[in-house]
Amino acid sequence: MTSFSCPLPIMNHANVQLAHGSGGKLSADLIAAMILPRFANPALNRLNDQAVLSLPPGRLAFSTDSYVVDPIFFPGGSIGDLAINGTINDVAMSGAMPLFLSVGLILEEGLPMATLHRILVDMERCAVEGGVSIVTGDTKVVPRGKCDKIFINTSGIGVVPEGLDLDASRICPGDQIIVSGTVGDHGLAVLTSREQLSFKTEIQSDTAALHRLVSLMLKTSNQIKVLRDPTRGGVATTLNEFASTSGHGIVVEEAAIPVLPAVRGACDVLGLDPLTVANEGKLLAVVAKDDAARLLAVMQAHALGGESRIIGEVVAEHQGLVALRTGLGVKRILEMPVAEQLPRIC
Amino acid sequence: MTSFSCPLPIMNHANVQLAHGSGGKLSADLIAAMILPRFANPALNRLNDQAVLSLPPGRLAFSTDSYVVDPIFFPGGSIGDLAINGTINDVAMSGAMPLFLSVGLILEEGLPMATLHRILVDMERCAVEGGVSIVTGDTKVVPRGKCDKIFINTSGIGVVPEGLDLDASRICPGDQIIVSGTVGDHGLAVLTSREQLSFKTEIQSDTAALHRLVSLMLKTSNQIKVLRDPTRGGVATTLNEFASTSGHGIVVEEAAIPVLPAVRGACDVLGLDPLTVANEGKLLAVVAKDDAARLLAVMQAHALGGESRIIGEVVAEHQGLVALRTGLGVKRILEMPVAEQLPRIC
Repeated sequence: MTSFSCPLPIMNHANVQLAHGSGGKLSADLIAAMILPRFANPALNRLNDQAVLSLPPGRLAFSTDSYVVDPIFFPGGSIGDLAINGTINDVAMSGAMPLFLSVGLILEEGLPMATLHRILVDMERCAVEGGVSIVTGDTKVVPRGKCDKIFINTSGIGVVPEGLDLDASRICPGDQIIVSGTVGDHGLAVLTSREQLSFKTEIQSDTAALHRLVSLMLKTSNQIKVLRDPTRGGVATTLNEFASTSGHGIVVEEAAIPVLPAVRGACDVLGLDPLTVANEGKLLAVVAKDDAARLLAVMQAHALGGESRIIGEVVAEHQGLVALRTGLGVKRILEMPVAEQLPRIC
Repeated sequence: MTSFSCPLPIMNHANVQLAHGSGGKLSADLIAAMILPRFANPALNRLNDQAVLSLPPGRLAFSTDSYVVDPIFFPGGSIGDLAINGTINDVAMSGAMPLFLSVGLILEEGLPMATLHRILVDMERCAVEGGVSIVTGDTKVVPRGKCDKIFINTSGIGVVPEGLDLDASRICPGDQIIVSGTVGDHGLAVLTSREQLSFKTEIQSDTAALHRLVSLMLKTSNQIKVLRDPTRGGVATTLNEFASTSGHGIVVEEAAIPVLPAVRGACDVLGLDPLTVANEGKLLAVVAKDDAARLLAVMQAHALGGESRIIGEVVAEHQGLVALRTGLGVKRILEMPVAEQLPRIC
């Protein structure tokens, strides 16, 4: 990992200046010193306003996400990790192998170059580990107080395997719902690292790129109906989207949902439901019943799916609604949160 | 144009709330009421985390840009116009026909819904006129004071015609440099509309989508070496990029460069050089000498190229540098601006 902790390039300024986003010489200096050494590849190096790419044949998956997380560094990751892994995941949930990313940086005047460098190094590490190339980008600088240190937009492109069409409309009664691991880790890691909060925990963000797990899953079963990563809004939101799009009901067993004890404890103290908290390295899969056990076993054998569980199933009753069967055997409606309790979690 | 001035949808909130970016129910409401009615298309309507698209065969052009202009409405356009036209142009400068756009919105808590609506209507109008579909998107909300009303990232995808490879490295001595119209309009329109500034002018932004002009140009000549839209940093920056990438020199005739009298006047008062000011609806083309006159005539006959002029040529001397021949016959080096004098112009 030492190659990813390279020294800060020598810049004439210790902090980002408005002129670094001007499109003039200081912009060019910033790109040459800070950006290109991290992400160099033939398409990016041409420094045109667009990358020209040759892709394998097939339908394209195209995704975008802006990252505004506060704080920008948190246990287990940074805004840089999220920006790469998050967009890899958004592309991967279509079943596509992510190939190319764009990066749009919005920087606040005065941001220490060392902070920007640390974020770029995180982005480089995640891009290299994820096997994606950053092929085009843009840098803007806004005056002090007009943004919060740094916002990052990444868009991603991948190619969807022939014949694959993952969509919530394909869900049928009887299908099983699998989660790839513990829920709520990311949201709680970010929240409990905020300075205002008086108590600290050991909770780490689960930020991770899930495309290789997805690829393995798709090789294991051709009966996967839909995949989605439950980020903002958490598992509760994703399950409600599945129910609403498919028009079927969903029943989830509360006791089957894996939650780390530290996350459960922090949620209890803060009055949060881990099912509505953001994840950044987990996915929900809906799969035909016949394939569920086999798929689960393959997921559990993967480094990013060790805690995978079947947490519920699709039913013909209470159409469009999600019911949670609690430890007491009572069923209650699990609603989409009106608002996530945790803003700026990704 | 009446279809683009549709009434504000009825929302429960007159202003953007943090919860509208939470991923929960209020996010879904915002998307359903404000976004989908504007941009509806089969890929977007599925509301997956990514769009799955079938593209014509060919290499892909992929571009990204973040828009942080201040003020967000200015004579001749808005941040919404820039976000669509600017990314269409970045894709088009490769010779590609732009097809699909992503939109990432970062909204400040408290932004009036009516303001957001107005911007979205501008985006819809430009997307319809430009023939591009917005197929995927993301909305984040940050607390009051953590951004400046609205930032927009758009990424764009298009397909590059077979065999076409526009790049500054293809420039040769003798090639002619054409600008598609008056320079500096956009930057001055934005600057002189800022509230702090004591004088007002009639200068309008030139924001426009140039892809159809580009398509016509490419049909006219197969000797176009490179195209670029001189946005931030202006014509001076783009010419320096051409010189630096190609390793050749460039000579420009100051008197040949079209500048509106109002722009020239405002630049004189403000101490700005129109060659370093941003444009949002102009392009620079470098073309082999034999084709220059024919290409110029075709550009001048197009609605977006009426004021096109040959402004200079590529030379074997002063390699990597741009020389400006002034009205007095003196040549001086035209440098890339160290910093644009106008931050947040796009």
